[in-house]
Amino acid sequence: MKNYILLNENAIYYECGFSCDNVVFLNLGDDKYFITDARYTTEAKEFAKGCEVVQSSDLVEDVKNILKKSKIKKITFDPNDFKLSFYQKVVENTKTKFEAIENFSKQKRIIKSDEEIELLKKAANIGRAGFKELAKYIRKNGYNQSENYLHFKAIEKLSHSGKYDLSFDPIVAINKNAAKPHALPTKTKLKLNDLVLVDAGVKYKRYCSDRTCTSNVNFENFNFKREQKFKNKKHQKIYDLVLKAQLNAIQKARVGMKASQIDQLTREIITKGGYGDYFVHSTGHGVGLDIHEFPNINSKSDVIIEDNMVFTIEPGIYLPNEFGVRIEDTVVMKNGKAQIL
Amino acid sequence: MKNYILLNENAIYYECGFSCDNVVFLNLGDDKYFITDARYTTEAKEFAKGCEVVQSSDLVEDVKNILKKSKIKKITFDPNDFKLSFYQKVVENTKTKFEAIENFSKQKRIIKSDEEIELLKKAANIGRAGFKELAKYIRKNGYNQSENYLHFKAIEKLSHSGKYDLSFDPIVAINKNAAKPHALPTKTKLKLNDLVLVDAGVKYKRYCSDRTCTSNVNFENFNFKREQKFKNKKHQKIYDLVLKAQLNAIQKARVGMKASQIDQLTREIITKGGYGDYFVHSTGHGVGLDIHEFPNINSKSDVIIEDNMVFTIEPGIYLPNEFGVRIEDTVVMKNGKAQIL
Repeated sequence: MKNYILLNENAIYYECGFSCDNVVFLNLGDDKYFITDARYTTEAKEFAKGCEVVQSSDLVEDVKNILKKSKIKKITFDPNDFKLSFYQKVVENTKTKFEAIENFSKQKRIIKSDEEIELLKKAANIGRAGFKELAKYIRKNGYNQSENYLHFKAIEKLSHSGKYDLSFDPIVAINKNAAKPHALPTKTKLKLNDLVLVDAGVKYKRYCSDRTCTSNVNFENFNFKREQKFKNKKHQKIYDLVLKAQLNAIQKARVGMKASQIDQLTREIITKGGYGDYFVHSTGHGVGLDIHEFPNINSKSDVIIEDNMVFTIEPGIYLPNEFGVRIEDTVVMKNGKAQIL
Repeated sequence: MKNYILLNENAIYYECGFSCDNVVFLNLGDDKYFITDARYTTEAKEFAKGCEVVQSSDLVEDVKNILKKSKIKKITFDPNDFKLSFYQKVVENTKTKFEAIENFSKQKRIIKSDEEIELLKKAANIGRAGFKELAKYIRKNGYNQSENYLHFKAIEKLSHSGKYDLSFDPIVAINKNAAKPHALPTKTKLKLNDLVLVDAGVKYKRYCSDRTCTSNVNFENFNFKREQKFKNKKHQKIYDLVLKAQLNAIQKARVGMKASQIDQLTREIITKGGYGDYFVHSTGHGVGLDIHEFPNINSKSDVIIEDNMVFTIEPGIYLPNEFGVRIEDTVVMKNGKAQIL
C-alpha cells in the first residue's frame, strides 16, 4: 500500500516515531506529511522521522490541498478511525478516491519486530514490578481500604509514582464486583480472605503491558503469584479451573495454529469443568502500541499464529453476584511456542 | 426533536442517568432504548431511567431491528459521534433516513439546570481543595521533584487519593515547558523561583471542574492564589497582563453579550499589552458532563450568553522556549453576571 491517510495516534507513531492528538498523516508514495497545529509543530519537527511537518490551522483544508497537488487518484483509509464528519468534509470536492480498509494499520503491526518485543518485555517487567509493590502495600496497609483507594494505589504502584503512563485504567475488584469483567471501583473494603482481582498495565516508550491476577487476601503473605490458596473452597475450585485453562493454552499454543484453536485451548477446559457459560469473553487480544491489537484470540478468528506475534491469554469465569476469576498474561510467540513476556 | 440516536457516553447519561462505554441510545418519540452488551445490562436496568434496556451481542443489528419495527421515517444523529464504519453498517438496508446535526446533544446541554450547577460547584470545590493539598505538598517536599512526579502528585491530590475521577490528565509544566499549552510532563526538576503552571480538574457525579494556576515557586509559602510574586521580572510582567485580561472578562461578562465579545474582553488587554500573537487559543469553553462543552468562547462565536451557562475564562501567553502563563477559572452566569464557581 503506497497511498494512505492516518488519523490514529498510535498508527501515526508507528510510521514516524512521533504523534500527538491532533494530526493527519499522509503517505503519498515516497512523500509523507505530518499535518498538525501550532501546539505540536516544534516537537514534530524534532521527532517525526522521514516526513514533512505541515503547520495547519485547518487540517482538513490542508489535507485537501496536498491531495489536489499530488494528483493521486486513490488513497486508503480506516473507517474505524474516521469520524463521519471528518470524512464528509475531506471527500467533499476532492478528486482523490477514498478507499476504506478496516484496521489496515493494526494488520501491518500484527507481527512485532525484535525491537518492539524488547520494548514490550520491558513494559511487562515494569508492570510486574508494579504489581509487586502493590502486593507489598496490601500486606502492610491494605486491610479495610476501599476499592476506590486500592484503585488509586494500583495507579501509583503500576505507574511507579507517575514515571510511566498506564496502558489503561486499572481494575481492582473485590468478591462480587470481580464478577463484572469491566468492574468500576466502589466503596467496598478489603477484608481477610476476600478474593481480589487486579487488571493493570503500563507503557514503556508507548508499548503496553497487560496482566490480570486474582488473589486470596491475607495480610501476612499477600501476593500476585499464580499459586493461590483461597480460604473459600468455591474460590479455589474456580481459580484452579481458570488457571488450568490458562496454562493449557500457554503450554500448547503453537505457531501455525488458527487463533480460534488457541481460544479453544482455554475454552475446552472451562467448558469441561462445567463453567463454559460463565466464560463470557474471548481468550485474548494482541498487545502493542494499542492495548487491543491483532491478533484477536477468539472462537471465530482464522488468523494463523506466527512467531513474533504478541497477545494476551486471559480466560475468566464470572459468577454474577458471587465473584469472578481472571488470570491473564501477555505472551510472545518465539521458536513456535508461547513465552510469557 | 423526537427521534434521535446517541452513541456518546455523556450524551446518553444526560438522557437517562446512566451510561457505559458500549451503548446505543434510541429515542423514538416516547419509546427510549438503552442497547448494550451483557457486561452492563445489570447496572443499566438498575440505573437507566425511563428507557427499556436491551441486551445485545450485536448493537448495530439490534438498532436496525428496532428501527424497522418502529417504522420511524427520520432519525437525527451527530456525525461527530459516529465512526464512519458504524454509520455505514447502520444505514445499510435501513429505511429510516439518518439526518446529521452536529453537536445537538451539546446544544441541548448548553444551559445548565440549577441541580447541574450545584454539582459543578461541588466539583469546583473538590478541585480547589485538591489544588490546596498539592500546594501543601510542594511547600513541604516539592523541591527538586520532577514534573513527572509532580504530575503524579497532582493526580493524587486532585483525585483525593482515588476518591474522585479526574476531568482530564492534569498538566504540570515548569518554565519553558509551560510555553506549550498542552505540555506533557518531563524529567525537569522543580527549583526555587521557577514558574509552574498546573491545569487540572475533577469530576463530581460525572460533572467536571477545570482550573489553571500559574505560580512562582518557593518552599515557604507556595500557593495557587491569584496574587503571585515572581522573582523573575518578565514572569511578573506577563503574569500581571494575563491576570488583568482574565479579571477584565470575569468582571465585564454579561448575559446578552455574544461569546465573541467575552473573548474580546481578554484578547484586547493582551493585544494592547503587546502579546496578542502569543495568546494562541480561545478564551474558554463550556464545562459540564464533558470537559469541553458549549458555549465556545472564541473570536468567531455569535452565541448569545445566557444565565446558567457555565464556561471557563482562561487567557494565556506562551513565549516559546521561555515560559507560559495561563490563568483559568470556571464561571457560571447568574443574574446577568459571571461568578466563579
